[in-house]
Amino acid sequence: MTYTLWYWPSIPGRGEFVRLAMEAAGIAYVDAARSRSAQALIDDMAAREGRAPFAPPYLDIGGAVVAQVANILSYLGEQHGLAPEGITDRLWADQIQLTITDMVAEVHNVHHPVGVSAYYEDQRPEAARAAAQFRDERMPKFLGWFDAAARAGNGEWLVGDRWSHADTSLFQLVEGLRYMFPRRMAALERDYPAVIAIRDRVAALPGIAAYLASDRRLPFNEDGIFRHYPELDDR
Amino acid sequence: MTYTLWYWPSIPGRGEFVRLAMEAAGIAYVDAARSRSAQALIDDMAAREGRAPFAPPYLDIGGAVVAQVANILSYLGEQHGLAPEGITDRLWADQIQLTITDMVAEVHNVHHPVGVSAYYEDQRPEAARAAAQFRDERMPKFLGWFDAAARAGNGEWLVGDRWSHADTSLFQLVEGLRYMFPRRMAALERDYPAVIAIRDRVAALPGIAAYLASDRRLPFNEDGIFRHYPELDDR
Repeated sequence: MTYTLWYWPSIPGRGEFVRLAMEAAGIAYVDAARSRSAQALIDDMAAREGRAPFAPPYLDIGGAVVAQVANILSYLGEQHGLAPEGITDRLWADQIQLTITDMVAEVHNVHHPVGVSAYYEDQRPEAARAAAQFRDERMPKFLGWFDAAARAGNGEWLVGDRWSHADTSLFQLVEGLRYMFPRRMAALERDYPAVIAIRDRVAALPGIAAYLASDRRLPFNEDGIFRHYPELDDR
Repeated sequence: MTYTLWYWPSIPGRGEFVRLAMEAAGIAYVDAARSRSAQALIDDMAAREGRAPFAPPYLDIGGAVVAQVANILSYLGEQHGLAPEGITDRLWADQIQLTITDMVAEVHNVHHPVGVSAYYEDQRPEAARAAAQFRDERMPKFLGWFDAAARAGNGEWLVGDRWSHADTSLFQLVEGLRYMFPRRMAALERDYPAVIAIRDRVAALPGIAAYLASDRRLPFNEDGIFRHYPELDDR
């Protein structure tokens, strides 16, 4: 079957974590709001009533929708072999994915520390404080943990002997951090070579290489989660 | 088998979501750091090396650890029937659980908007701004969504025809919000009767009633996630 993915059409955002796993695996999907409009997404959510998702992205699997990035990827992982075999490895892949979710939430908090629905421009001093601590403490803590996880893998992928949704999501996390904090990442990356090696292996997967070269890959921008505000970046 | 749960011994925190599901189901567990010390938890995490969790809580299932609240509860759900039968219902329960996770992260952000590891006292003006938006916009948005989810259930529980980990976690979310924002919750609760009805049903489950009356149930306090700072509460 062809899945229908619903996500905001103008940002990579959280939807990109789902797109990447499907592109790497060659899973057929329609990116519904991109072929239609943001309003079509808003209308679709409203029409789902009792089991409407709290927020996009969500995947229509025919008869039901699955929302929450980690939940979608765990589901696709089981259905299409994008997750390791064996419950212990599968739980570990899900744990890595949920830790990426946690870091993504903190990334968003950097530019929206005191008002999720207020503008960045209305919380710039607070964002500067949040960014300083994020750069100094949270980035090394998260990246160090992902690097240890990568070193605990088979030398190639995070879990098991082939790529999983945890690897494609780690790729996107690195890409997003490079876009948002280019100076900080330039200073930090040498300390986390196992993370960068996985990022590079994911980029070289045939499905990902083709996707990155296509117009389906949306550029990062300042409406999304990873935003480049030069004043928030520092080595 | 008896599970070993590792979490900070002096706060309910994220560990409480795991405790409640196990207590409701009568699953045997040792609350390791409570019978030992916070240092024992720190030492245990360090000793786990490559697959060490990013943060507590985590559950030792014998030979492996499972971390991340939603991941732990999904695992226990499958093993012990605390999740609905059928993949569609199970994914919906996991989605509700992950949305509770999202709200809990925002709750923590209210009192730590610009520095996860800084003191509340060093970010009080920022916390006041964050709290105002959380009370006015985020609480109605999340509680409204949970109420719609509750109304889409069978009239008794969120998913399926018996309680699941989503119900026990919704109970804890309501309890935490009542502790943190008593004035705001007093004004809001009447708008979300289906949420409150589930909270009351969970409280009446025999395993939960016994747990709440025991000294195993830790009180909320100002070192945890749900903190009562009167200056952040308002109707």
